[in-house]
Amino acid sequence: MQTSSDDATAFKTIPFTWPKGYKSDGVHAGLRQDKKDMGWIYSEVPAQAAGTYTTNQFQAAPTKLTKKLINQDHQLQAVIMNSANANSVTGDQGDKDAIKTTQLVADKLNIDQNLVGVASTGVIGEPLPMDIITKGIEQLKLTDNHDVTSAILTTDKHPKTVSTQVQIFGKTVTISGFCKGSGMIHPNMATMLGFVLTDASVASGLLQPMLSQEVDKTFNQITVDGDTSTNDMVVTMANGEADNQELTTDSPDYPAFVQAFNYVLSTLAQDIAADGEGSTKLVEVNVKNAANSDDGQKVAKAIVGSNLVKTAIFGQDANWGRIIAAIGQTNAKVDLNHTSIWLNDLALVKNSASAHFDEAVMKQALAQDKITILVDLNVGDATGQAWGCDLTYSYVRINASYRS
Amino acid sequence: MQTSSDDATAFKTIPFTWPKGYKSDGVHAGLRQDKKDMGWIYSEVPAQAAGTYTTNQFQAAPTKLTKKLINQDHQLQAVIMNSANANSVTGDQGDKDAIKTTQLVADKLNIDQNLVGVASTGVIGEPLPMDIITKGIEQLKLTDNHDVTSAILTTDKHPKTVSTQVQIFGKTVTISGFCKGSGMIHPNMATMLGFVLTDASVASGLLQPMLSQEVDKTFNQITVDGDTSTNDMVVTMANGEADNQELTTDSPDYPAFVQAFNYVLSTLAQDIAADGEGSTKLVEVNVKNAANSDDGQKVAKAIVGSNLVKTAIFGQDANWGRIIAAIGQTNAKVDLNHTSIWLNDLALVKNSASAHFDEAVMKQALAQDKITILVDLNVGDATGQAWGCDLTYSYVRINASYRS
Repeated sequence: MQTSSDDATAFKTIPFTWPKGYKSDGVHAGLRQDKKDMGWIYSEVPAQAAGTYTTNQFQAAPTKLTKKLINQDHQLQAVIMNSANANSVTGDQGDKDAIKTTQLVADKLNIDQNLVGVASTGVIGEPLPMDIITKGIEQLKLTDNHDVTSAILTTDKHPKTVSTQVQIFGKTVTISGFCKGSGMIHPNMATMLGFVLTDASVASGLLQPMLSQEVDKTFNQITVDGDTSTNDMVVTMANGEADNQELTTDSPDYPAFVQAFNYVLSTLAQDIAADGEGSTKLVEVNVKNAANSDDGQKVAKAIVGSNLVKTAIFGQDANWGRIIAAIGQTNAKVDLNHTSIWLNDLALVKNSASAHFDEAVMKQALAQDKITILVDLNVGDATGQAWGCDLTYSYVRINASYRS
Repeated sequence: MQTSSDDATAFKTIPFTWPKGYKSDGVHAGLRQDKKDMGWIYSEVPAQAAGTYTTNQFQAAPTKLTKKLINQDHQLQAVIMNSANANSVTGDQGDKDAIKTTQLVADKLNIDQNLVGVASTGVIGEPLPMDIITKGIEQLKLTDNHDVTSAILTTDKHPKTVSTQVQIFGKTVTISGFCKGSGMIHPNMATMLGFVLTDASVASGLLQPMLSQEVDKTFNQITVDGDTSTNDMVVTMANGEADNQELTTDSPDYPAFVQAFNYVLSTLAQDIAADGEGSTKLVEVNVKNAANSDDGQKVAKAIVGSNLVKTAIFGQDANWGRIIAAIGQTNAKVDLNHTSIWLNDLALVKNSASAHFDEAVMKQALAQDKITILVDLNVGDATGQAWGCDLTYSYVRINASYRS
């Protein structure tokens, strides 16, 4: 995350809000005991759309369907969502249920079924209870409330939302994102549900490459437990209701738009990492002087992904040998004698040996809610960044009993 | 593990013993509070030797030195070992200390220093206290006791040993192995210390390829936490004291020897997995009908390596969706609609859908100490196998406080 709301005047963060022309709702349909479990987002006009999807070979029915629809016309007008049931590994019936769900939504909204995406999250392998889904869709309204951001949660502790505004050709454009996901969070997209809505008017063909590129730097650089879900996706929609002159990659404001978009994705990604199942700390790893950015990203991710590093951080133990071991496990180019590491700006390792730090001071640093690890590989000038969390008793408790 | 002591008459298991011509000892030198922490093995004559070593880029000083010595002359006569300090990421001083350690042993045993290997395990990044090492070596004797098998332990709950005997050209040959390792156990060798000694006379050049091949099927297929140590190695020695006619790959008894050798490695590997830090259960995964054995091994290892599968097994929850998700995370060829899974011989998933099992019966199966998962990928006729353990509160406790 090189950008922030403090940077120059590129963009500003605002309280969470729907961009112009979007409506939404979230309800309790009955998939969960008493929490909200279904929701939707709707654009008053068809919006350009792009998506990134899980790389798990067992892609869930809703993921396959939404991917197919977006790749067909690069447009969406609504997305229906549910938690508690992933409609994954549910065979032909699962595909039929996903299609039927979008049909019910299209009928209710009186729009083309090909403009309705669907996203599900929850337990794998159980058929979607279509009677409950049907009742849920009957309840949904077109409102300004943010209830959908709760309705998609599973083991998350709280909704994850962010809004930014940026000027495009003199018009104020809003970019708002929300997401869920605190387990099964790992590499290679998407391992969670994320939605980024904007009222910007953007040139056709701009959205997909920008989303793919920024997801690689953000969502694909977080890890909670190394497991990649069958279901998850990040979908972005741009409906043009901000009435700006169409944005192209050549527009003078394009860099600011990308910066704001990256900020939304990066904030959501960090929120997911910080809310990782059972976590008590957000861990950010920054790698500098890598041979290339692939190496930088790989090393950053190896560190946040190591169970041994994660438990040491939970135990507030400055066990730098585990960080070194995690770096050495990758095939990234490293300077074996001149690797240095800082933890919350305190020198931990200097030239591949202990920096002879004050254990008490380091322990205090490790007591903080956010741990930032900086690694200097000393072999080039590329960087990398990743986010994760500590591994705790609660992670084990949550996951030893999630299904039942 | 296709072989066992019940198989035909290929080999038999016997109580742990040193093969002919080997001596050993283990002592408390003072690296640990009061447990044994140093030991050695010694062959009365120089033995042929082979080794496999960690793939971690930050290879520890003792690992680098032992690898260099073995690759030089393919011979060893002694190996000195210590726990509590890994002599890893200790810079030039670490290299000097490893060399000095082998010098002290060579002097005491009056053998060539190039015939002395060294193996260390423990905390990374702290200089080896050479005064203690020196005192330890002074105490070591040439005995028949098995104390070295305790002296190399760190967080292991108990020593791991196995002995087999096999007939080679009418002579009884003994193969004995011991190892340590219960954390930082993962792919790509060696992630633990393992030693396999035999009194067989073997042709030169036979040992290394056999060891590498069998380690790939055994030690490299266990995982406890996905972290690969900087230190660890498997070393094998064959001193010829059984006085058999020299074994070559063409010898009629070669398959029996390999079978016995595989049994030793496989038993040790499973012992490590079962004794994984904080574990309560051994998990064995067998994959059948894979497109090729790489795919089979990959899928087996992905399942035993998944934190979500591991926590579900700890929670005795038949959460097969997590097994499916782990399979789908690999790039192995799978039949998305005809993947089937059994747990301790009970059908869990049939053709990529729930096998509608009895939850109570399945829960009972999951209460056992050993969980065997069988996966049918339905795309070929190759197999794969891997071992791991569950992920528990104790794993977190052990690793949140190991260094301090």
